[in-house]
Amino acid sequence: MSAAENQSDQFASLAVGVFKSTVERTAKLWSGLTEEQLHSEIAPGKNRVIYILGHLTATADAMFSLLGFGPRLHPELDEIFIKAPDKSIAILPSSDHLKAQWDEINAAVLSHSAKLSPSEWLQKHTAVSEEDFAKEPHRNRFAILLGRTSHLAYHLGQIVPGTK
Amino acid sequence: MSAAENQSDQFASLAVGVFKSTVERTAKLWSGLTEEQLHSEIAPGKNRVIYILGHLTATADAMFSLLGFGPRLHPELDEIFIKAPDKSIAILPSSDHLKAQWDEINAAVLSHSAKLSPSEWLQKHTAVSEEDFAKEPHRNRFAILLGRTSHLAYHLGQIVPGTK
Repeated sequence: MSAAENQSDQFASLAVGVFKSTVERTAKLWSGLTEEQLHSEIAPGKNRVIYILGHLTATADAMFSLLGFGPRLHPELDEIFIKAPDKSIAILPSSDHLKAQWDEINAAVLSHSAKLSPSEWLQKHTAVSEEDFAKEPHRNRFAILLGRTSHLAYHLGQIVPGTK
Repeated sequence: MSAAENQSDQFASLAVGVFKSTVERTAKLWSGLTEEQLHSEIAPGKNRVIYILGHLTATADAMFSLLGFGPRLHPELDEIFIKAPDKSIAILPSSDHLKAQWDEINAAVLSHSAKLSPSEWLQKHTAVSEEDFAKEPHRNRFAILLGRTSHLAYHLGQIVPGTK
């Protein structure tokens, strides 16, 4: 491996590492929440914690197709946690059920991510066309990885002040 | 430039781009806050928005020395926003004063960041010793960049629910 190839490997590994540690922080926080905390709003009139956790699970699942890892594991989550706002659906899946899906989805995303080469990280993600990607080469898998890590950190920040 | 060198460049540029857009999102949010919103707590009994924004400004300033860009611009911020908890200091700097420092610091960090080569991003940050870096090569400037981006996104999430 040349020095430059080794560098590319380091960039990709570091970003996957930060994503992984953010996923683990979320899982640890989730495991420590009571049913009351899960069903409280993050601020008066805003989303409930359980809805945000479901939203994060649906977003993690969407990484599967965006990164070209194969069909999604739980696309049915989108109806409840992406398309519908909180409190518009009477009965949400239980926290235990969602948490098991969270663990399953993220383990699979991380397992696939660990196998991608640097040049595969820089390939287009599936939501951009070949023509658009030729003009905008930054719309690649690596951008999805960085964007999803920030998205996760942002929502973690929303959950923490109300539950600590 | 070889294909592998070009790849390394893309990884570094993408991560700087995500950091920059998160800084811009913060600045835009900040500009739209009223004095009342700035002095409200993010949740009952928690930090005030102005304290978190000052904390983010101090953290951005610390990137200067961590990334080896030269002496910090406003190290005095640490006494108020890192070492002291919120509400322990009677009079905080004004939001306008802090916002001007925020803009100044981040413009300088971004200007220096844009000039770093991929191999410079993978060099050690200044808070790790040569010996430790030899054992833990992931403690580099790029890790600081990714970590600071997540830190910013996390605190943005804390600020948004209470002010929207």
